Amino acid sequence: MSKPLRTSAALDPMTLEARRGTIYPDKFKPRVAGREKRALGNAFGLQNFGVNLVRLEPGAQSALRHWHTQQDEFVWVLEGEITLVTDAGPEILKPGMCAGFPKGKSDGHHLVNKSQKVAWYLEVGDRSPGDSTVYPDDDMRLVVGASYKFTKADGSPL
Amino acid sequence: MSKPLRTSAALDPMTLEARRGTIYPDKFKPRVAGREKRALGNAFGLQNFGVNLVRLEPGAQSALRHWHTQQDEFVWVLEGEITLVTDAGPEILKPGMCAGFPKGKSDGHHLVNKSQKVAWYLEVGDRSPGDSTVYPDDDMRLVVGASYKFTKADGSPL
Repeated sequence: MSKPLRTSAALDPMTLEARRGTIYPDKFKPRVAGREKRALGNAFGLQNFGVNLVRLEPGAQSALRHWHTQQDEFVWVLEGEITLVTDAGPEILKPGMCAGFPKGKSDGHHLVNKSQKVAWYLEVGDRSPGDSTVYPDDDMRLVVGASYKFTKADGSPL
Repeated sequence: MSKPLRTSAALDPMTLEARRGTIYPDKFKPRVAGREKRALGNAFGLQNFGVNLVRLEPGAQSALRHWHTQQDEFVWVLEGEITLVTDAGPEILKPGMCAGFPKGKSDGHHLVNKSQKVAWYLEVGDRSPGDSTVYPDDDMRLVVGASYKFTKADGSPL
């Protein structure tokens, strides 16, 4: 239950329950074990895109490095230092910095907390249909249809 | 030109040019004269949604009070105190607070800087087609098709 009753039109995000866990196959779960998300957009009933407030513990990753075929993504760093990894290499993002990942650009990205302190960021992603997620470092692909299905990059079973 | 050449995958928003101005009819322009936007999503080539970093001077409004028929909106306060106005009345948002406005919910909203200090926030809105914007306090409607067209609420010319 991440949708408290609100009499206000606004929200203090810390009143929302934090969600851990992932739909990743078991062998990848430890990489995101220190990740906690609060679903801000869902709390307001938004449907076209999601906005999460994410807390990353030292050592935790935002996700496996990936890119989307149909959906755009955006992140804004609120607190701490976060390493953004793309084909351009690692780069440290500080509060007030942002990054965007346009659909169809085959350059995987993820955020890694390589610091000794907890970090916080906002992530935005739209929900355009027909999306696939490609994980170039892990020989994996996710196809979203009626359900979520992970395969190897070539479409064969994991 | 709000899209500088970047060798980095990330961005310091303050390197982007700030945009003033509005497509509103002249009589409404003073309300948003103290508003400045930096188009973060566009700088990364995002297409499905826009993300703006907005600076509101004392007295300035984010927009006329409005709601969208097809597009969701979300705001996150970064700095200063901002008054959110909806049918629920005015309410002060402080840094770390957020608000969301689901498509089709006929409750107009806008942000007003009633403080003595500059305020900053992030705004996110998707670009779903077929949207209309309704301005309940100002007897106006905006229909977005091949172009932007303002009419009175009943569809007659302004």
